[in-house]
Amino acid sequence: MLDVSLLGTGGMMPLPERYLTSLMLRLNGSSLMIDCGEGTQMALRKKGWSCNPLDVICFTHFHGDHISGLPGLLLTMGNSDRTEPLILVGPKGLERVATALRVVAPELPFPIEYREFSGETADFELKGYQIRAFRVKHRVPCYGYQISVPRLGAFDVNKAKENQVPLRFWNRLQHGSDAEDEDGRRYTPDMVMGEARQGLKVVYATDTRPAESITEHARGADLLVLEGMYGDPEKLPRLKEHRHMMMQEACRIAEEAGPKELWLTHYGPAMMHPENYTKELCAIFPNTVVSRDGQSTVLKFPD
Amino acid sequence: MLDVSLLGTGGMMPLPERYLTSLMLRLNGSSLMIDCGEGTQMALRKKGWSCNPLDVICFTHFHGDHISGLPGLLLTMGNSDRTEPLILVGPKGLERVATALRVVAPELPFPIEYREFSGETADFELKGYQIRAFRVKHRVPCYGYQISVPRLGAFDVNKAKENQVPLRFWNRLQHGSDAEDEDGRRYTPDMVMGEARQGLKVVYATDTRPAESITEHARGADLLVLEGMYGDPEKLPRLKEHRHMMMQEACRIAEEAGPKELWLTHYGPAMMHPENYTKELCAIFPNTVVSRDGQSTVLKFPD
Repeated sequence: MLDVSLLGTGGMMPLPERYLTSLMLRLNGSSLMIDCGEGTQMALRKKGWSCNPLDVICFTHFHGDHISGLPGLLLTMGNSDRTEPLILVGPKGLERVATALRVVAPELPFPIEYREFSGETADFELKGYQIRAFRVKHRVPCYGYQISVPRLGAFDVNKAKENQVPLRFWNRLQHGSDAEDEDGRRYTPDMVMGEARQGLKVVYATDTRPAESITEHARGADLLVLEGMYGDPEKLPRLKEHRHMMMQEACRIAEEAGPKELWLTHYGPAMMHPENYTKELCAIFPNTVVSRDGQSTVLKFPD
Repeated sequence: MLDVSLLGTGGMMPLPERYLTSLMLRLNGSSLMIDCGEGTQMALRKKGWSCNPLDVICFTHFHGDHISGLPGLLLTMGNSDRTEPLILVGPKGLERVATALRVVAPELPFPIEYREFSGETADFELKGYQIRAFRVKHRVPCYGYQISVPRLGAFDVNKAKENQVPLRFWNRLQHGSDAEDEDGRRYTPDMVMGEARQGLKVVYATDTRPAESITEHARGADLLVLEGMYGDPEKLPRLKEHRHMMMQEACRIAEEAGPKELWLTHYGPAMMHPENYTKELCAIFPNTVVSRDGQSTVLKFPD
C-alpha cells in the first residue's frame, strides 16, 4: 500500500493558492519526496503529513522552483530533533547546490547522504523504494523518476513440500528469515515463496519536452505524473523554447504508454484555471486528472 | 505618505496560514522590504503588492526564516524583466550568504548592490528612505531597523522677502532648484524654506532579547514593529536561551519608548492564537496590535 500526494501543482513561482510541484510517497513508515521548491514545507503541513518519516528527497534538476524549499525544510526537520540520516538523490552537482543553500542551515542534528548520478539512467534501492532516474529534455540536465515498490511472491505450499521444508519453518521463511534444522540443513525463503508478484509503479516527469524516455518508463505505471504547463496552444512556441510541456502533449504520452491514471501538474502561473481543459484532455486520454494541490490516492497491490 | 504592510507574522517556519515575518514599505513608487523568509513572495502576492518597484531589501540577520525566500523572489523579479538595480542591506556576510543562495538564481537581468555593515549602528540613505540599522541581542549578529522619511520645511514668505528673493523665483526654489538673476546673484532653496518638519519613523526589531538600543530608537516612532514570539510565561526560559522576546516584553519596551502604535509579530509556530493575549498586552501598552498577516496602514505626515 502506497500513499501518494501531489503536495503542490505550480511551476516557476509559488502562488498563495498554488504551491510548487512536489510529489510525496509514503510506504511502511518511510516517506520519499520528489522536488522541494519554496513553500513545500507549508504544502506538506497543509496536507497534514509530517516531514518526520521523510528519508529520501529526489530532485529532478536545480532550478529554484524545484529545490529552493530545501534549506527551510531541513531547518524544520532539524527543529524536530531528527537524528536519522536523510538521503538526497539528484543529478551531478547536487551536493554542491545543496551545500550552497545550506548556508542558512549549516548545523543540523542529522547527517545528509548524497546519491548523485549522470548519464541516461541511474538506479537506487532505498528504504523499500526502487528508484530509477531517467533523462528528460530540459534546458539543463533534468531527470524523471520511476518509483517502484516490489511485491514478494505468495507463500507456495506445493513448493514448500517439494523442497521438503519442515512445517515448523514455514512461517519463519515466509517472513523472510532463514532457518536450519538439527542436521545442519539450511532453508531459505525462496524455498517456500512463489515468483515475485506485480508491484506498484509511479512515474514522475516535469520540466521537459515530450521524450521517448518518459513514454518507455510510463508503460504499465499505476500513476503517471506529468508536467502540463499550459493548455492554450498559443503558449506552445514559448514552451518549446524553454523546454516545457503542454497539457495536451502530456496526455498524448499517456495515450501511448497506457498508465492507469495521469495526473497533470507544474501549471504556469498565468494559467489560473487548468481545470477548464479537462474535457479536451480526457478526449485524448480518458483517465486524465487535472490535479489540484493535495491531490492524493492510495495505491494498492492488485489482488 | 508611507504605505506599510506586515506581509507575514510568523517565526521559525512558514505555516499554511501564517507567512514568515516581513515588513514592506512603499514611498513615492519605491518599495523597501525588511526580511524575506521562505514564502515571502507568496505573502507579497497575497497582499496584492508587486515586487516591481522593490528597490531595497534589508536583512536583520541570516537565519533561514529571514532570508531563505530571497532566491525565489529574485527569480520572480527576474522573470518580470526588471533591469533596475536591487540594493541589499545587511550585516557583514550578506554578500557571501546571498551569493550562496543564488546558486539557484545565478543569472538575473538586473544588478545587485550590497551595503554591508558591522558595529553598533549604520546609516544609509536610499531611495528617499533614511535607514538606520542598530544592533540588537540575538545568538548571532542581528540588527533592528529604523526607517525614517524626512519632510522638508514649508515655504516661508517672510524668509523669502528677508532674503530679497525675486517673486519670479519663489516657485522654482520651493521645488528644490537653484536660480540666478541677471546680475549673477544666486538663490538657493534654503532662502525660501522653513526648518525641516517632522517626518515619519518606523522601527522594526525581531529575533532579540529586550535591548536599550530598541527603546532608544523607538522613541517618537509612528510605528514600532516588534517580535512577540510567545505570550505564555512558561516559554520565557526557552526564549531567553534562544534570545527571543515575549509579547509582554515587547509591550514594556513600547510603554517606555512611547511610539504611536506597536505591532507584534514573529509568533512562534506553537502559538496558534496570539490574539488571545490582546487584553493582557493592551493593559501594558494600550496601542498594541496583535498583528495578523497583511496588517497594513498608511502613515501620513502630521498637519
